[in-house]
Amino acid sequence: MRALAYFKKGDIHFTNDIPRPEIQTDDEVIIDVSWCGICGSDLHEYLDGPIFMPKDGECHKLSNAALPLAMGHEMSGIVSKVGPKVTKVKVGDHVVVDAASSCADLHCWPHSKFYNSKPCDACQRGSENLCTHAGFVGLGVISGGFAEQVVVSQHHIIPVPKEIPLDVAALVEPLSVTWHAVKISGFKKGSSALVLGAGPIGLCTILVLKGMGASKIVVSEIAERRIEMAKKLGVEVFNPSKHGHKSIEILRGLTKSHDGFDYSYDCSGIQVTFETSLKALTFKGTATNIAVWGPKPVPFQPMDVTLQEKVMTGSIGYVVEDFEEVVRAIHNGDIAMEDCKQLITGKQRIEDGWEKGFQELMDHKESNVKILLTPNNHGEMK
Amino acid sequence: MRALAYFKKGDIHFTNDIPRPEIQTDDEVIIDVSWCGICGSDLHEYLDGPIFMPKDGECHKLSNAALPLAMGHEMSGIVSKVGPKVTKVKVGDHVVVDAASSCADLHCWPHSKFYNSKPCDACQRGSENLCTHAGFVGLGVISGGFAEQVVVSQHHIIPVPKEIPLDVAALVEPLSVTWHAVKISGFKKGSSALVLGAGPIGLCTILVLKGMGASKIVVSEIAERRIEMAKKLGVEVFNPSKHGHKSIEILRGLTKSHDGFDYSYDCSGIQVTFETSLKALTFKGTATNIAVWGPKPVPFQPMDVTLQEKVMTGSIGYVVEDFEEVVRAIHNGDIAMEDCKQLITGKQRIEDGWEKGFQELMDHKESNVKILLTPNNHGEMK
Repeated sequence: MRALAYFKKGDIHFTNDIPRPEIQTDDEVIIDVSWCGICGSDLHEYLDGPIFMPKDGECHKLSNAALPLAMGHEMSGIVSKVGPKVTKVKVGDHVVVDAASSCADLHCWPHSKFYNSKPCDACQRGSENLCTHAGFVGLGVISGGFAEQVVVSQHHIIPVPKEIPLDVAALVEPLSVTWHAVKISGFKKGSSALVLGAGPIGLCTILVLKGMGASKIVVSEIAERRIEMAKKLGVEVFNPSKHGHKSIEILRGLTKSHDGFDYSYDCSGIQVTFETSLKALTFKGTATNIAVWGPKPVPFQPMDVTLQEKVMTGSIGYVVEDFEEVVRAIHNGDIAMEDCKQLITGKQRIEDGWEKGFQELMDHKESNVKILLTPNNHGEMK
Repeated sequence: MRALAYFKKGDIHFTNDIPRPEIQTDDEVIIDVSWCGICGSDLHEYLDGPIFMPKDGECHKLSNAALPLAMGHEMSGIVSKVGPKVTKVKVGDHVVVDAASSCADLHCWPHSKFYNSKPCDACQRGSENLCTHAGFVGLGVISGGFAEQVVVSQHHIIPVPKEIPLDVAALVEPLSVTWHAVKISGFKKGSSALVLGAGPIGLCTILVLKGMGASKIVVSEIAERRIEMAKKLGVEVFNPSKHGHKSIEILRGLTKSHDGFDYSYDCSGIQVTFETSLKALTFKGTATNIAVWGPKPVPFQPMDVTLQEKVMTGSIGYVVEDFEEVVRAIHNGDIAMEDCKQLITGKQRIEDGWEKGFQELMDHKESNVKILLTPNNHGEMK
C-alpha cells in the first residue's frame, strides 16, 4: 500500500510498497486512515535518529518488525475490518488510536522475544505509559498512520462521535499528551497556570487548561508567530525577551495574589524555562515538565523547591483513558472545536508528506503548528 | 532569669540576666521549661550565623526583640501562668511548644512594624510554616527554651498527656519536622521508604515512617556510630561507601519489586544523596528533601523525573497540627517511646549547656543524636 515510510537513518520517503496490514490476532482492528499529524518526534527521528526506530539492518526490539515502516502516530480514521473478538467498535465507526504500545500488545507479536510474557510492574499498576516495553505505532513498533491503513488491537482504539470532524480528531493524540500532563500535575479547576513555550505542545497545553477550567493562563513565548497563535486562543502572552532578568518577578505579579502561579508547564525544555517553571510558582505550586530534554544537566538548587514546599514532576506519554477524556472534552465543548482548528496549519497528501510536511516544518518551524497528512482514502483532499 | 543565650555573632554563653518573661497579651502562656534539645540549627547560628538571629546591634526584624536572647526551640515544660483568654491549657499542664512564629503572632508584638497587619497569603491558606514572617522562638524572634521560662501564645501550645515523660516530649519538635515532611510527601501506609542519612533528622524520619506503617524502611548511612543507632531502631541499613557506583542499583534491588522505593527522604543534602533520592525510586515515586542546602546548585536532569513521572518536593518546618499528631502517635504507641529514648544521647543543665552541649555536639557529632538541656526547675537532673 501507499505510505510515507522510514527506510533507514536519514531516509524517509513515499513508497507504494508497504505491506497492507492484516488481522493476525482476534482483537485487532484495521483502520482506513483519514488524517495523521506530523509530530516533533517524527522530525527528531530524521534529524537525530534512530531514537525509537530500529537501527539500520535491525528489527524492532519489541515487535521484531523490520524496516521500512510507515511513520505517523497522531491519527484518525474509519474502521474497515474487525477481528472476531472485537467488541469496542464496528466497521464504519470513526476512531482515534492510542499510539503507545505496552505489555498489553505483546500477544499480538508472536515473533517478539517477549511474546506472551507477564505484564511489567508499571502495566500491572495501570501506568502503561511507563511500561518497560513502551514504544509507539508509527515509530518503529508497527507501521503507522502515514499510510492507507493501520492495524492495532482494540485496547488502543477510541471511538469518536461523528460530530467531531476527522481532522480535529487527529489532534486528540497531541492533546492527550498534554491532558495527561495536566492531570498528573494534580491541576484543580479555578487554579492559575503558566505555560512555557507556545509550540505545538504548549498550545495543546493551553487548550487542555482552558478545558479544565483554569482561572488564568499565561503563556511565555518569544517567537512572534507563536505569540500570535497563542493570542488567537484567548490567553495572556508574556514575552520574556523584552524583560530579561525581571521576567520571573513580572510573571509572578500577573497572578491574582501577585505571588506566582499554582501550576507551571515547561513545554520548551531549556535552562531558563526550567528555572522560570519553579520560581514563577506560588508556595506549594507544582511545576510539570512536558518537554523532552537532552542529557545535559541543568543547575538546580533544592531550596528553590524546599523553602516553599513546591513540587516538581514530569509527564511522559499517555494512557488510553486520556484519549477517552479528550474526546469527551471536545465533544462536550470543554475543549473548543474552533481552538482545535486553529492548530491545523497545513494539510497534505502522504505523497507530498516529505517535501510539504517534514521539510516545511523543518524550514518554517515557527509559522506551523500541526501539518496533517492524508492517504486520501475518503477524498479528504477533495 | 538563668539562660543559655545568644549575645552576638560567635558568642553564646550562660547568663543570669535574661529578663523573666511576662504575659503581655491575653492569650499568652508562661511555661516552666523542663527539657529543651539542641538542634543542628543552633550550632549553625554559632558556626555560620547570624542566620535567624538578629545581626549584632540590631533588633529582630519581626518582633523587634533585642539581643541577648535565650536560644532553644525543642522544648517541653509545665504551664506556670496563663493569660485571661487562654482556654487551651491550665496551670500545671504538661506541654510542648510549636516554635514557629507566623502572622498568628503579630498581635503579641506591639513594637513590631508588622503589628496587627493582615495575615499573609500562606497563613490565610493554613500554611503557617511558609509564612512571610516565619521565624522561631529561641532563634531570635523571642527568647527560647534554654531558660527557666518561656512565654508563647496558646496557639503554639500543645498539651501532652502525663503518660509521656517530659524528656521524650522534648523530641516532639524534631519529630514534627519529619512528620510534616512525611505527610507532605503523600506517604501511604504500606509503602516502602529510603532515608538518606541517619543523623538526628534521618533518625526522626525513621520513627515517623515506622509510626505511619511503612512496609519497608532502608536507611543509607556511612558513619559507623550512626549505622549502629539506626540498627537499634530496627531498620535495614545500607552503607554506600562499600558499594560505590553500584549503590543505587543495589538499593533498588532491596525493594519487593526490585524496582526501587515508593518514597525517599534526603536528610543529608549532598549531591550523591540528591541523585540517589531520585534514582533509587520506583516509577511515580516521590523524593522529599528535608535537608537544608547551601546556595551551590546540583546538576539535575529533568528526564530523571519525567521518564518515570517521579515527583520531587521539599519540606520546611511544621504547623501546629503536626505537633498534635506526633503527640497522639507517641501516646497511642505508633511512635514507640523506647525508640524516642534511643535518640536522647545526653542530658545537661543549661549552666553547662555550652561546654557539655554545643561543644560536645561540635566535637563528637556522630556519637550524639539529641542532647537535652534543662534549667532544672523541677529537679530534672536530680
